[in-house]
Amino acid sequence: MHDPPRIGVVGAGQLARMTIQAAISLGLQIRLLAERADDSAALISPAVMLGSPNSLSDLMRFAETCDVVTFDHELVNVEHLCRLEEAGYCLRPSANTVAIAQDKGKQRRLFASLSLPIPPYRLLDRPEDAVEFGDQFGWPIIGKTCREGYDGRGVWLLESSEAARTWGEQGLGTGRQLLVEGRVLLERELAVLIARRPGGDSVTYPVVETMQREGVCRQVRAPAPVGAALAAEAMSLAERIAAAIDASGILAVELFQSGEQLLINEIACRPHNSGHYTIEGSGTSQFENHLRAVLDWPLGKTDLRAPAAVMANVLAVSAESDSSAALPRALAVPGVHPHLYAKAPRPRRKIGHVTALGADVEEASARADQAAALLSGEVVAQP
Amino acid sequence: MHDPPRIGVVGAGQLARMTIQAAISLGLQIRLLAERADDSAALISPAVMLGSPNSLSDLMRFAETCDVVTFDHELVNVEHLCRLEEAGYCLRPSANTVAIAQDKGKQRRLFASLSLPIPPYRLLDRPEDAVEFGDQFGWPIIGKTCREGYDGRGVWLLESSEAARTWGEQGLGTGRQLLVEGRVLLERELAVLIARRPGGDSVTYPVVETMQREGVCRQVRAPAPVGAALAAEAMSLAERIAAAIDASGILAVELFQSGEQLLINEIACRPHNSGHYTIEGSGTSQFENHLRAVLDWPLGKTDLRAPAAVMANVLAVSAESDSSAALPRALAVPGVHPHLYAKAPRPRRKIGHVTALGADVEEASARADQAAALLSGEVVAQP
Repeated sequence: MHDPPRIGVVGAGQLARMTIQAAISLGLQIRLLAERADDSAALISPAVMLGSPNSLSDLMRFAETCDVVTFDHELVNVEHLCRLEEAGYCLRPSANTVAIAQDKGKQRRLFASLSLPIPPYRLLDRPEDAVEFGDQFGWPIIGKTCREGYDGRGVWLLESSEAARTWGEQGLGTGRQLLVEGRVLLERELAVLIARRPGGDSVTYPVVETMQREGVCRQVRAPAPVGAALAAEAMSLAERIAAAIDASGILAVELFQSGEQLLINEIACRPHNSGHYTIEGSGTSQFENHLRAVLDWPLGKTDLRAPAAVMANVLAVSAESDSSAALPRALAVPGVHPHLYAKAPRPRRKIGHVTALGADVEEASARADQAAALLSGEVVAQP
Repeated sequence: MHDPPRIGVVGAGQLARMTIQAAISLGLQIRLLAERADDSAALISPAVMLGSPNSLSDLMRFAETCDVVTFDHELVNVEHLCRLEEAGYCLRPSANTVAIAQDKGKQRRLFASLSLPIPPYRLLDRPEDAVEFGDQFGWPIIGKTCREGYDGRGVWLLESSEAARTWGEQGLGTGRQLLVEGRVLLERELAVLIARRPGGDSVTYPVVETMQREGVCRQVRAPAPVGAALAAEAMSLAERIAAAIDASGILAVELFQSGEQLLINEIACRPHNSGHYTIEGSGTSQFENHLRAVLDWPLGKTDLRAPAAVMANVLAVSAESDSSAALPRALAVPGVHPHLYAKAPRPRRKIGHVTALGADVEEASARADQAAALLSGEVVAQP
């Protein structure tokens, strides 16, 4: 019996945790490079190497034990990844792809060069660039750090030239790369997932709607309430981006819908929050298809397995939010699938999610929200 | 944050492995009492205690680290389980329930006392009892060991009084308990799963057909091709048995259909091969409902999520069967869900299963079989 391929995941958050679940079915063992022994995925894994994703020697030591290395997050040093590739290790996605995924500025420049639709934007060389951009496109504008922003962090609403100048001075002064973009009148936010093999074969998941509150995704609704033409356009954009960046594994493309126009917001080259519903909702989960893709194996079906699937994130209300204690009450909500990440609660921290399938989005949404509110501590369960 | 309840599983086979997968979603950690570090579930668990399910001190040491203890198999010493209960540990199912589940003789006596339908049988005090039974009911008859028989082991077809006497002498001579039963003309074999909480609340899964070859289950087909009345009768039998033995967790009831009559064959008080299809095929998998039941938490929906679901077991053809190497080919079969147990192949050993959902049983069956034949080594994949 050959040993199955050894897959390493850099990072041990909930994405790695759910990837491990998918790997168990396929008889695969995932190795983790975890920063802490109590990271979400490390808690359930017998194959944890403790180390830093920012340490070249840790990465080298880790890659040596793996046939393929993939990622739980993109907060890694791309120069280190290049060194790993030079040393002959197989990274999927590649260092080049991660370099784009971790940098909104690189993404914007690439998409602009390919004439793909994006919001009006400018990369900042100096604080005055933000002011000029705002004066040109109209206030307020959005300021963003090119890297390390997520869940509403790294995004600012800039109401005036003074605010923009101060923000630009502070950010550039601390060595950050910044961009500003025009505030787009949004119909809604959409996302498309695609799983792509190194050779280029790919499968695309249906377009979903992502519901944000205070910059954080609260819900994902499948299918998105858009017409066939717009859905096809969104899927086609994802496929063009995947090919352009030579993605391998899952690529998530976040889109703005403005009228009947689509604008690319940002991308991620890993399993993504907008695809958690696929565990119960799809013919193949994003986690299984990520594994199949990074191993260059045939990809699985992406069809929705119910008329509607809704995922609600569980965002801790406080450090006292006790999702585990609330779980029996949440399970009493009919037809919900809670996923708890075993993460310590902090206000607004994602500590789990709930998926509900249903006859329509409204009905599934109500049940998912009901269970998520119990788990988050937003609604206190009656004893 | 309260720590979630600690669940211990005695045994670390594929049932424990799939239970762990379900537990990850619920944020629960399963502790294992495993005989070997390379047992199917031990390979994927960071919480393994090595020890013997037949050692009272190992069981005691293990139970001490758990809030609830449940089982991967019933090959345990019931007296030890009683000692654990006397010491205050929580076993679900209880020692009493396990005692019945591990002994076909006890089952038959209990079901007879409850006037539940069973095949004609006799427990053997002496070898002549088998001969008398055969002469009375007609030859051939079936001989069974009361304990430790599974997958066709512990079952004999006895064609004559000589064969029955020799078999009885040998079996009783080695201290085994034996029973003989009349050979029932079978329409088909059925199974019903029920998940039951300690207080008595329960949910019942649809009746499935189990397809055997040489005493080993090859396929499970949901739903079973039986009328509504027979299906209701099967589910009602399972519910009566669950109540009679005070089951907690999953109870599987295997049934013979003879004409329009149902006869109870045997039961198991744990997740069961006939319920593997529930992972993808049902509103809640048997593994999740087992966990919810042993924790006395609300149970999940048991509805079929497709018109048909078929599970095909992957039985290794030889010690060289390489399911892992065949996996990419199996994944190329559309819409199949392979589960590999990471068990060393031996002829006829269950090393995995494949589930396919479909519009009808025949179509799903063909796909599940195709993938299973590749994984078992029965069909060699073209490179």
